[in-house]
Amino acid sequence: MSSGDLANVDVLIIGAGPSGLMLATWMARLGIKTRIVDKRFDRINSKPMVCKAEPSKFSIPWVLAKTFGNPDEQRKLYRSDMIVDTVPGLSRFQQATLHQARVEEYLLSYIEKYSDLKVEYGVMPESLDIDTDKVESDGYPVSVTLRSLPRPGPESQVSLDVEDSKIPNGLHRSNLTADTTDALLQDAQAADGTCATKIKAKYVVGCDGAHSWTRRQIGCVMEGDHSDFIWGVLDIIPITDFPDIRYRCAIHSASGSMMIIPRENKYVRLYIQVTEVDEKGKPVDRFDITPSNLLDAANRILSPYKITYNHCHWWTAYRIGQRVGSKFSAHDCVFLAGDAVHTHSPKAGQGMNISMHDTYNLGWKVASVVKGWANRSLLKTYSTERQQVARELIEFDRKFSHLFSGRPAEHIMDKEGVDLKTFKQVFEKGNLFSSGCVVDYASSLIVTKPAVTKTAVEDGGTPLVGKQALAPNIPIGMRIPSHKILNQSDGRPWHLQELLPSNGQWRVIVFAGDLLDHAQSLRLSNLGMELRSPNSFLNRFRPKDNESSLSSFFEVLTIHSSPRQKVDLLSLPEIFHPYSSEYGWDYNKVYVDDMSYHEGHGQAYQNYGIDLQKGCVVIVRPDQYVSWIGELEDVADMNRLFEGIFVSSPKLP
Amino acid sequence: MSSGDLANVDVLIIGAGPSGLMLATWMARLGIKTRIVDKRFDRINSKPMVCKAEPSKFSIPWVLAKTFGNPDEQRKLYRSDMIVDTVPGLSRFQQATLHQARVEEYLLSYIEKYSDLKVEYGVMPESLDIDTDKVESDGYPVSVTLRSLPRPGPESQVSLDVEDSKIPNGLHRSNLTADTTDALLQDAQAADGTCATKIKAKYVVGCDGAHSWTRRQIGCVMEGDHSDFIWGVLDIIPITDFPDIRYRCAIHSASGSMMIIPRENKYVRLYIQVTEVDEKGKPVDRFDITPSNLLDAANRILSPYKITYNHCHWWTAYRIGQRVGSKFSAHDCVFLAGDAVHTHSPKAGQGMNISMHDTYNLGWKVASVVKGWANRSLLKTYSTERQQVARELIEFDRKFSHLFSGRPAEHIMDKEGVDLKTFKQVFEKGNLFSSGCVVDYASSLIVTKPAVTKTAVEDGGTPLVGKQALAPNIPIGMRIPSHKILNQSDGRPWHLQELLPSNGQWRVIVFAGDLLDHAQSLRLSNLGMELRSPNSFLNRFRPKDNESSLSSFFEVLTIHSSPRQKVDLLSLPEIFHPYSSEYGWDYNKVYVDDMSYHEGHGQAYQNYGIDLQKGCVVIVRPDQYVSWIGELEDVADMNRLFEGIFVSSPKLP
Repeated sequence: MSSGDLANVDVLIIGAGPSGLMLATWMARLGIKTRIVDKRFDRINSKPMVCKAEPSKFSIPWVLAKTFGNPDEQRKLYRSDMIVDTVPGLSRFQQATLHQARVEEYLLSYIEKYSDLKVEYGVMPESLDIDTDKVESDGYPVSVTLRSLPRPGPESQVSLDVEDSKIPNGLHRSNLTADTTDALLQDAQAADGTCATKIKAKYVVGCDGAHSWTRRQIGCVMEGDHSDFIWGVLDIIPITDFPDIRYRCAIHSASGSMMIIPRENKYVRLYIQVTEVDEKGKPVDRFDITPSNLLDAANRILSPYKITYNHCHWWTAYRIGQRVGSKFSAHDCVFLAGDAVHTHSPKAGQGMNISMHDTYNLGWKVASVVKGWANRSLLKTYSTERQQVARELIEFDRKFSHLFSGRPAEHIMDKEGVDLKTFKQVFEKGNLFSSGCVVDYASSLIVTKPAVTKTAVEDGGTPLVGKQALAPNIPIGMRIPSHKILNQSDGRPWHLQELLPSNGQWRVIVFAGDLLDHAQSLRLSNLGMELRSPNSFLNRFRPKDNESSLSSFFEVLTIHSSPRQKVDLLSLPEIFHPYSSEYGWDYNKVYVDDMSYHEGHGQAYQNYGIDLQKGCVVIVRPDQYVSWIGELEDVADMNRLFEGIFVSSPKLP
Repeated sequence: MSSGDLANVDVLIIGAGPSGLMLATWMARLGIKTRIVDKRFDRINSKPMVCKAEPSKFSIPWVLAKTFGNPDEQRKLYRSDMIVDTVPGLSRFQQATLHQARVEEYLLSYIEKYSDLKVEYGVMPESLDIDTDKVESDGYPVSVTLRSLPRPGPESQVSLDVEDSKIPNGLHRSNLTADTTDALLQDAQAADGTCATKIKAKYVVGCDGAHSWTRRQIGCVMEGDHSDFIWGVLDIIPITDFPDIRYRCAIHSASGSMMIIPRENKYVRLYIQVTEVDEKGKPVDRFDITPSNLLDAANRILSPYKITYNHCHWWTAYRIGQRVGSKFSAHDCVFLAGDAVHTHSPKAGQGMNISMHDTYNLGWKVASVVKGWANRSLLKTYSTERQQVARELIEFDRKFSHLFSGRPAEHIMDKEGVDLKTFKQVFEKGNLFSSGCVVDYASSLIVTKPAVTKTAVEDGGTPLVGKQALAPNIPIGMRIPSHKILNQSDGRPWHLQELLPSNGQWRVIVFAGDLLDHAQSLRLSNLGMELRSPNSFLNRFRPKDNESSLSSFFEVLTIHSSPRQKVDLLSLPEIFHPYSSEYGWDYNKVYVDDMSYHEGHGQAYQNYGIDLQKGCVVIVRPDQYVSWIGELEDVADMNRLFEGIFVSSPKLP
């Protein structure tokens, strides 16, 4: 949305890493006037990991199993266990390791497809002020001064590489190196030819990483501590006789710990524990950490196996710390997301995932409020929901890192050491955690679980509580699980999640039950009539913005349980398969839980625990989290749910 | 390969439709100096079928089931049957309808990825001469004069549209319209500013469609006949109460026949039978065929259902004919492919598929000979293999079209009419045919079936015959069926076909049997030693061309049947997982038939009918067709097979 006046924007995103770009995808998709700036001139570490000897089909490694190495009685390494890395049935996807640059490229191409929003590289903020009087009004409460930085010449590029200048070195971005943000800004202000522009924004989101400038402006403090564990990272093409080199592998040896992560093509990433003190007991200097020192450590850990390489793509080292921000927003108009508000070890593979989830949670909420569709109270749920996840992550990571960095137990009475059983248990829990499928948001105006605390009740009256028992395996507050269903009109199987693209719509999923049963068919007809009434949420809350890509805030999807060939689409009430004089009937709204031609029976009703006869209605948020469950008759509750969220008479922009 | 001298090229491709572009992909992939010309200035009908009301996830319709409509006793339509469209288990893919323009775009992007070859649009040949003395030598036996055509002004564009000039009309390309090739050339020769260039080529391939100019130059005659059946085609967004509109649907009604094919987004294609004579018994004039006449016919056929539309993407009409060329090549240096050498009705959906298969068969053979790798006798197999397929297609299509155009039987004694049972049987056979999975090439120097005729034996001596009994479900002469196997090193499941990309390599697939059995392990070691010997085909036949993308003509893939976790990759002989001092061990050559973590057990040995203990060796051509099967000891036969194909001492280019 770079067209028009850029001095006033709806949303300013500071930082164009994965969390900033994820937020920008929502803004692009929903047509929000946005700017996104990044102090860097280039994207990080974006050189693809290719090697000539490998065909492209191996460019995305799946991570299917973890193996564990432990010292045997002669303190030599052996494969103590092997577990499956993704819990079977948890997701329709498998784990794979994807380069951050590829994820960013995907998001950038999505943004380009939907908007003309462009990242402004080499630009950073130098002041931020919130006019608290304007926060609740329709103005632009945040003033920001943006400064364009002078492009660094080739001679001034940071190089801490002590050993081989051809290997890209990530040490200068590591937390072993001091924060250079202020210095960068001062240099820019002193330099000739850089300019500062004042802009105003309705919302500002700081996605500016561990050294977040935005965080300091709103007085957010990182709470927690750094540990003394230092870990090195090497991305190499390994030449080794270690047999499990293509597995995700946790090695806990007498000489230290190491983790192996298979990467693109022939590459693997090694996480290698570095002794905190040298032989003389002196703390290690970060400049003493080099690729060859890391390789030596890896060889000690892997002994009797050997490892070496000719190709190193990148390396770094960092100190492990688990910290979370004291607050996630100021006045619900400046927000923090990603590393700006939680830092932890990267070993659980969660940094990029959780950071993107932060802004995936925030984006549709901010867009709905900017558009004048939703009440500002919706924004409070960002802090409550994501702070909870960050705290769980930090707690898990603290435990995980301790286990990882700790010395292995030498015998069953060795209480100081870490025993393998505990290690494996935590690892298995980590699988669930890192899948992102176990996030469980607390009760709020958009999650109708029984409220644990009073504050979760927004409307002062009896809180609205969904009927969880109607679909016990669709937990309210969690992402809706996906099973295969068939299109009524052509028999094609779809995973339910494929039908829920992130376009800003809430989904009203009508599990219609058995349509061949007369009483049930009547229930569905009645629901159709209620939904068509002028008082229903479908008619009361509608986008009036002609520029909106949404024709409705809601999409009604129907999934029935009768045999597909015995049901005629046109026998269902029209509201479940809308007619257009331009395009005819909509053939993509009604689905069935039945046997497919080639992919078996999805057994969606059974898997969800829904009664095949009676069905239920499930309301799913634009981010696929379950908001409410009720009977086909509970239209009053549906109306009440949306009355708490949507503005009855949306303001025109 | 547009760089360098373009007056002498290895391969000239005439026509840039799907068959020409498929040939160009092989040339691009294998680095052959090529030109490709097309007399058109734009690609055909390339406007994508989009409509605003439809999200992009519906852009490729799957075709899962066919339904049949037939008249009931009141001569009204009813759904007489429904069958699955793709035979379950036949392929890992499902059927989908893909726009020709999308297929062409995919091929063009592949060509661009691997070469700088560009289609020269608006260029056509005007003379072609073969110097037969040079055919067997290393020269350029074919001389061609190419003429660049004047770009037509907007006023001169063909428009036969009688009704609505906004609807793209394909009638002028239909076989109801006379061939305009000669007129086009004469106009170009008479026009100012067009130029002719003489070039020489080693090979010329005519992919120039039903009115092929190349075909006439080599004296190939189309044999067969036109029928009197005329069919119209409408690509529309239907507005209808006909319930099966999103199925592939064959309707055989009292008022004529029709076929419905779901297309991209909301579109469907209707094939509608047009009465050959009007009410007065006069043959229909092609100018009387209009979209509204076609729609009227569709409504008569669909009665009592109704159909109309607001959006028509394209329409045409054509007369059905089944003809095949008298020869597929001249001197094995000028070849014909695609519609240039076989024409048939498009209803079986085979036009584009079979045409692309023609040049997919030809491409690697021509490239191997041009590179000096293979003997010229390899080229003879193009004509024998594809002529056989074309004849089978024509025969099937003749039967299919007759059934389709014929009047439905009114009762069981109605011998003139077409009974539904026969119709369904032919339709089911058509499914197999159109899957492309039942092509079965005859014996030749690259297909070691027992020869039916003497001519198939090339070397004069006892023909080499593969041991089909070792793998009864991998028929020699057919494409190797695909089952899932796991990578030994990381457990990732792969469909075997995914491991056989079209890069020009022959695959030696070693089904190694049970490696935990000592005797079997010894057999594998012996095979490894034989393959490493200087006399083995692996060492005798190697590309010497430094520019080649191939490091070897052969890739050895191993699939064993022991439990994955009990086998250590490094315990297998090195030749099965080659070591490189640059990159270490190759982790992508050894696979196992075992249970996967998430996708069950592929049961490859059982499905192929291979003994789990003893295994066998299967040799697969660069186009994935099975060439030979033998024991692990049959290295002498492998050597003999490749002696008949490859040039022992490859010439440098």
